[in-house]
Amino acid sequence: MAAQQLGLATESQVQRGKILTATNDEFDGVIVEVNEPMDPKVFHSILKASISLWRQQGKKGVWIKLPIGLVNLVEPAVKEGFWYHHAEPTYIMLVFWIPNSENTIPANATHRVCIGAFVMNDKREVLVVQEKGGRFRGSGLWKFPTGSVDEGEDICDAAVREVKEETGIDTEFVEIIAFRQSHKAFFEKSDLFFVCILRPLSFDIQPQELEIEAAMWMPLEEYEAQEFVQSHEQMKRITEIYKAKVDGVYNGFSPVLTDSGFSDAKRNLYLNEKAMKRQ
Amino acid sequence: MAAQQLGLATESQVQRGKILTATNDEFDGVIVEVNEPMDPKVFHSILKASISLWRQQGKKGVWIKLPIGLVNLVEPAVKEGFWYHHAEPTYIMLVFWIPNSENTIPANATHRVCIGAFVMNDKREVLVVQEKGGRFRGSGLWKFPTGSVDEGEDICDAAVREVKEETGIDTEFVEIIAFRQSHKAFFEKSDLFFVCILRPLSFDIQPQELEIEAAMWMPLEEYEAQEFVQSHEQMKRITEIYKAKVDGVYNGFSPVLTDSGFSDAKRNLYLNEKAMKRQ
Repeated sequence: MAAQQLGLATESQVQRGKILTATNDEFDGVIVEVNEPMDPKVFHSILKASISLWRQQGKKGVWIKLPIGLVNLVEPAVKEGFWYHHAEPTYIMLVFWIPNSENTIPANATHRVCIGAFVMNDKREVLVVQEKGGRFRGSGLWKFPTGSVDEGEDICDAAVREVKEETGIDTEFVEIIAFRQSHKAFFEKSDLFFVCILRPLSFDIQPQELEIEAAMWMPLEEYEAQEFVQSHEQMKRITEIYKAKVDGVYNGFSPVLTDSGFSDAKRNLYLNEKAMKRQ
Repeated sequence: MAAQQLGLATESQVQRGKILTATNDEFDGVIVEVNEPMDPKVFHSILKASISLWRQQGKKGVWIKLPIGLVNLVEPAVKEGFWYHHAEPTYIMLVFWIPNSENTIPANATHRVCIGAFVMNDKREVLVVQEKGGRFRGSGLWKFPTGSVDEGEDICDAAVREVKEETGIDTEFVEIIAFRQSHKAFFEKSDLFFVCILRPLSFDIQPQELEIEAAMWMPLEEYEAQEFVQSHEQMKRITEIYKAKVDGVYNGFSPVLTDSGFSDAKRNLYLNEKAMKRQ
């Protein structure tokens, strides 16, 4: 009965704008999205009342998403004990832990994901580019296309997209032959770089104007003979792996869509499929 | 001469606190770290003067890192055109692009990285746990240890650490047999889950009290026969891969420290080392 009265009071408070509108999450927490401008002092007092109510309700984590246009509400939230969880160009996510126990708030994303793509035609020539910017600008190095995986994008799709963007070549994804983990790639964040093999579906190169100085098909042996590739341990090793792959004596990981059981979407599981098929 | 005069003026302005102290980055940008409290209005006017100077100097990206204690300086920066780049519990990083050209500010981290660890003793028993919390709580499922890779941590080290923390078992890392990419794992962020094989160096289980309900060595066939493993496509497939590995007919990727050429630190390149050695 007391709980029911509390419930009724709550609903009426929310309706009267005295309590923030929140949705429950799966972990006994609440998520608040503020989308309308509000006076910072008014926001602060409503936030206090809301936390007090959520505490009574046994809520644990409280998430507040504030669009960048409501930057003036960040300070009152922090004064109330919230801290930053993550931020993107258009919003900041703040978080607070109500119980006295240690918080189980999940960590923020730690890695950026990048790809490099080897594409070979039937003359044993690989697709290479020279970049207008970046660390290899003006070095004369012909390198394989590289790029970042976008938010929510599959690694295999990112490789196909980057090759198309930089060179105009259509491809289909084959496999990942190696990957590298680097730390402090930008500020404290790490990066995972996946070396991919793609099969070309077109051959007529059209270099992207903004980022690419030049693109061409280059004999694999000529690519490998470049001084930079020879003198750079990691580039040399990746090239050796690629040659082993071309020669048919190496298996990497290819993507297989599998049902994860936790959502409707199928996820790519990357595995040594040739080894599994051989069994 | 004009440039030199500009340079002199700059230094004296910085000394008098009229321009923010900044360090240059590799991409014609500047990085500002504010660590002392400042009146938001004073900060705003110094920021305006600083941007004007950096514009004259041809600077492009401007980064401002503000500790959470200086939350009152976030609003003036946003009013001046800055947007959020990323945030961690203790600070927010704001960014601004001075030129009229399209910005080349790198994207924020998009992925969290997690590991799962198969450890087998010489009786063909695998190390399994039941968790106190999480989605499998109370399900009766015996699962292999899992966890998140910390900021700046190598995947192989994270696997060894998680097994030790959850079960007290010391291990050495062998290889990654598969990995899965999932999207919208938390809010808009993705996750990469690496399935690892480790070799046990000790056998006496001591389950962690906080997170682990129970831990044991379980015959592989018994693990596999669990209803959840059988009915869950992805778990079943991962178990099949693991069995192929145990039977010696499957190669995953193992880490090899290689010189990346761009920093003093060696980086782990993960590759099918057995295939390379067979050549």
